Amino acid sequence: MPEISEQEISQKRLLEINTALESGMFVYVRKMFQHMPAFDIALLLESSTSRSRNVLWQLIDPDLQGEILEELSEEVRKGILRNMQPEKVAAVAEGMDIDDLAEVLRTLPDSVYKEVLNSMDSQDRTRVEQALSYEEDTAGGIMNTDTITLRPDITIDVILRYLRLKGELPEATDSFYVVNRKDQFIGSVSLANLVTARPEQAIAEITDYDTIAITVETEESEVAKLFERHDWLSAPVIDDNGQLLGRITIDDVIDIIREDAEHSMMSMAGLDDEADTFAPVIKSTQQRSIWLGVNLITALMAVAVSSMFEGILAEMAILAVLNTLVPSMGGVAGNQTLTLVIRGMALGHIGDNNARIILNKEIAVGFLNGLIWALFIASIVAIWKQDIVLGGIIAFAMLMNLTVAGLAGVATPLVLKKMNIDPALAGSVILTTITDVVGIFAFLGTATLFLGK
Amino acid sequence: MPEISEQEISQKRLLEINTALESGMFVYVRKMFQHMPAFDIALLLESSTSRSRNVLWQLIDPDLQGEILEELSEEVRKGILRNMQPEKVAAVAEGMDIDDLAEVLRTLPDSVYKEVLNSMDSQDRTRVEQALSYEEDTAGGIMNTDTITLRPDITIDVILRYLRLKGELPEATDSFYVVNRKDQFIGSVSLANLVTARPEQAIAEITDYDTIAITVETEESEVAKLFERHDWLSAPVIDDNGQLLGRITIDDVIDIIREDAEHSMMSMAGLDDEADTFAPVIKSTQQRSIWLGVNLITALMAVAVSSMFEGILAEMAILAVLNTLVPSMGGVAGNQTLTLVIRGMALGHIGDNNARIILNKEIAVGFLNGLIWALFIASIVAIWKQDIVLGGIIAFAMLMNLTVAGLAGVATPLVLKKMNIDPALAGSVILTTITDVVGIFAFLGTATLFLGK
Repeated sequence: MPEISEQEISQKRLLEINTALESGMFVYVRKMFQHMPAFDIALLLESSTSRSRNVLWQLIDPDLQGEILEELSEEVRKGILRNMQPEKVAAVAEGMDIDDLAEVLRTLPDSVYKEVLNSMDSQDRTRVEQALSYEEDTAGGIMNTDTITLRPDITIDVILRYLRLKGELPEATDSFYVVNRKDQFIGSVSLANLVTARPEQAIAEITDYDTIAITVETEESEVAKLFERHDWLSAPVIDDNGQLLGRITIDDVIDIIREDAEHSMMSMAGLDDEADTFAPVIKSTQQRSIWLGVNLITALMAVAVSSMFEGILAEMAILAVLNTLVPSMGGVAGNQTLTLVIRGMALGHIGDNNARIILNKEIAVGFLNGLIWALFIASIVAIWKQDIVLGGIIAFAMLMNLTVAGLAGVATPLVLKKMNIDPALAGSVILTTITDVVGIFAFLGTATLFLGK
Repeated sequence: MPEISEQEISQKRLLEINTALESGMFVYVRKMFQHMPAFDIALLLESSTSRSRNVLWQLIDPDLQGEILEELSEEVRKGILRNMQPEKVAAVAEGMDIDDLAEVLRTLPDSVYKEVLNSMDSQDRTRVEQALSYEEDTAGGIMNTDTITLRPDITIDVILRYLRLKGELPEATDSFYVVNRKDQFIGSVSLANLVTARPEQAIAEITDYDTIAITVETEESEVAKLFERHDWLSAPVIDDNGQLLGRITIDDVIDIIREDAEHSMMSMAGLDDEADTFAPVIKSTQQRSIWLGVNLITALMAVAVSSMFEGILAEMAILAVLNTLVPSMGGVAGNQTLTLVIRGMALGHIGDNNARIILNKEIAVGFLNGLIWALFIASIVAIWKQDIVLGGIIAFAMLMNLTVAGLAGVATPLVLKKMNIDPALAGSVILTTITDVVGIFAFLGTATLFLGK
C-alpha cells in the first residue's frame, strides 16, 4: 500500500525533468514518463513553457498521448495539437474514448480535423461523427456511449452469468440501465442492488423507476447542478423520444464544477477560464490588451468627469490630492457586493423573487459602511487640514458613493443577466465606471458648491 | 420517468412559499415541505432572509431537519442552530450520519454542544466523540465509518451470500476494503470486480493491492486533489498504524472542490467563502467594514504620495485631472496577473521551480501592454492638450506602472505564500497599494522633473 503523495512531488519532478532536459538527457526523461500516470504528465506540461512543452511531448510514448490530451486544458491541448501532423493525431486518437476524442477534435482547425477523420477506419469515424453531432457543452457532448443495458424480464442470475463471461465493466460503472423493446429508458439498477438481491428475482423487481434521465441537449452546467443536487455518481442520457443514448459519469462532471466555480473569478479579471498560465508573451499580451483597452475607456470617463472640475482643482490642490479616495472606496465596496451577488446567482440563491430583498440589504449595508468611513475620513481631514467644511464634503461624497456602490453592485449583474451578458465578465468594468464617476462627481461637485468662488 | 427539472423551479417555489407565508398559510407550507427533497429545502432556506428562515424552519418536519442541516452552508446552519433548544438539536441529531453530525456539533457554542452530547445515548455519544477527536478539515473530519471490510481468504460466493442476507449496502458504496487480522488495510475490491469474477475465487485473487489509502490527518483540500487526480469514487482512510478507520466518498469531496475553487474569488473581494448572502444588515456591515478599513489605509497611502506633489498639482490642474489614469490601469493589469498566478498556485502549476519563468513572462507582458497603452494615451493627451511633453510624461508613467504591475502581480502572491498568508485574501490589497503608489509617483514625479518650476 503506497504512502500518500505530497503536493510537492510534482514540483520536484518538474525540477528533475527540467534539469534533465537542459543536459540533453532525453532518454532519461522518456523513461521517467513511462512510469508516470497521465494526470501527472499533464500537470507537468501545464507547468511548462510552450517551448518546453513541445520538446516534452516528443518524449512521451504515443500510446499514452491520448490519455494525456484528455487531461490537458483546452489552450494547452490546442498548442500541442497545432504542432502535430494529422496522421499522428489520428494514431493517438485510436486509443481514446469517443467523448474525449470528440472534444479534442473540436479544438482542431478544420483542415486538420478532416484529415484526422479521413485517416480513421469507417466504424470509428461514424462513432466520432455521431458524438460530434451533439453540441459542445451539452449532455451529448460529455456522455459516454459504453453503457450496459438490461431488459426488465431477465433474472439477476442470468445477468451475473453474463457479467462473469464479459469479465470487465466499462469504467466507473455503478448502475445498469433498463430499457424496453424500443430502447427507451425505463429505470436503473445499481450494482449495490444487484449484489444484494436474490438471484432468482427479475430485473424489473429491483429496478428504480424514479431514476431521472438527462436529455441530450441539457447544458453541461445544468448537468453539474443535477449531479450536485442528487449526489449522483452517473446518470443516463436520453434523446427526445426517451431512447437511451449513453451515460455521464461524475469524473466528467467534477471538471465542469471546478470550471464553473473558477469562471467567475477569471472573468472578473478579464481572463479566459482556460487561459494558459505559461502562454507565450505575445499571445498573453494580445489576450489581456483588449481588457486593458476597455478599462482605459472607463478610466478616461473618470478623467472626463474630473476635467469638468478643472477650475476648482486649480484653485485648491488639496482636492486633487484627495480625489482618489472616494472612488477607490466605492470600487472596493461595490466589488464586494458584486462578488456576493455573482456567487449567489451561480448557486441559484438569487433570482427575480428575492432580488428586491438583496437590493435593499446591500443599499443598507453600503449606507452604514458609508456612514462609518465618512465619519472616520471626515475626522482625519478635519484634523489634518484644519478644515471642517472639507471634512464634511468628503464625508458626504463617501456616504453617497458607498450607497450607490451597494445599489450598483446588485443591479448591474441582475440587469446584465437579463440581457444575457455574463455578469462576471462585464460587471466589474461597469461597476467601477459607476463608482468612479459618482465618486468624483459627488466629491468635486459638492466641493464646487461649498468652496468654489 | 420524471422529466428533467429546470433551474427556475426553485425560484417559482420560493415565490409560492413566500406568498403562502405572508398570508399565514403555515399548514400549506408544512405540507409542501413534506414532498420536497432536503437539497431543495436547503436551497430555499439559503435564498431567504434570516427572519423568514427561522419561521420556515419551524414548519419543517423534525425528522427531515437533520438531513437539511447537512446541506446548509456553515453560516446559515449556525444561525438556525442558535435559535434551537439543545434537546431539539439532540432529537434532530439522532437521524444524522456521524460525520455530518460531528460537523454540525462543531459549529455550536460550547454550552449547547455539551448539553446535546449529554442528551444522547452513550453508544452514540462515544461514536460522536470519536468523530470529533479528528480535526475539522481533515480526512478524519469528513470520513464515514460505515465501511464493509472483507478478509482475503473468503470466497466471492460467501461474500455474495452475506450481502444478500444484509439486503442493503451503505450509501455510495463502490468498493469493499480488504483488511488483515490486525484490521490493517491491504487493498480494495470494487463492486465491478465482484460481479465479474467467478464465485469460487477468493477475495485475495481479485483484490487491488495498489489502492492508495488516505491517512486520517490529510488536509481536506489535499484529499480533494487526490480524488481529482485519480478519478476516485471513494477512498479508504487509515491511521498511522495502517488500520482502516473509514472511507471518504465523492459527494463529500465535491463540496470541498467547489469551496476551494470559490475561496479565491471570495477572498479577493475580502469576503468569507461561507458568507451568507442574506445575512442581516448589521452583520454584513460589520463583516465588510474591516476590509473597507484596510483598503482605506491603502487609499490614504496613495493620498500621502499625491500630497507630496501638492506644489505641482496647484500649478497645473491638468495633472490632477489625469492623476487617476495610470494607477487605475496598473491596478487592472496587476489584478489580471495576480488572478492568473493565484489560480496557477491553486492548481499546482506554479511553484519554486517555475516561478522565475512566470515572473519574467509577466514582466514582459506588462512591459508590452504598457508600451501599447502608453503610445495610445500619449497620442490622446498630445492631441487633446496640444502638449507633447505631457503626453510623454504620462506614457512613461504608464509603461513603468504596467511593468511593475506584472512584477508585483507575480511576486506578491509568491512571497505571501512563503509567509503562510493567504495570497487570495491579502494579495489584491498589497498589489493595489503598489500600483497606486508607483503610478502616482511615476506620473507626478516625472511631471515635477520636466514641468516643475
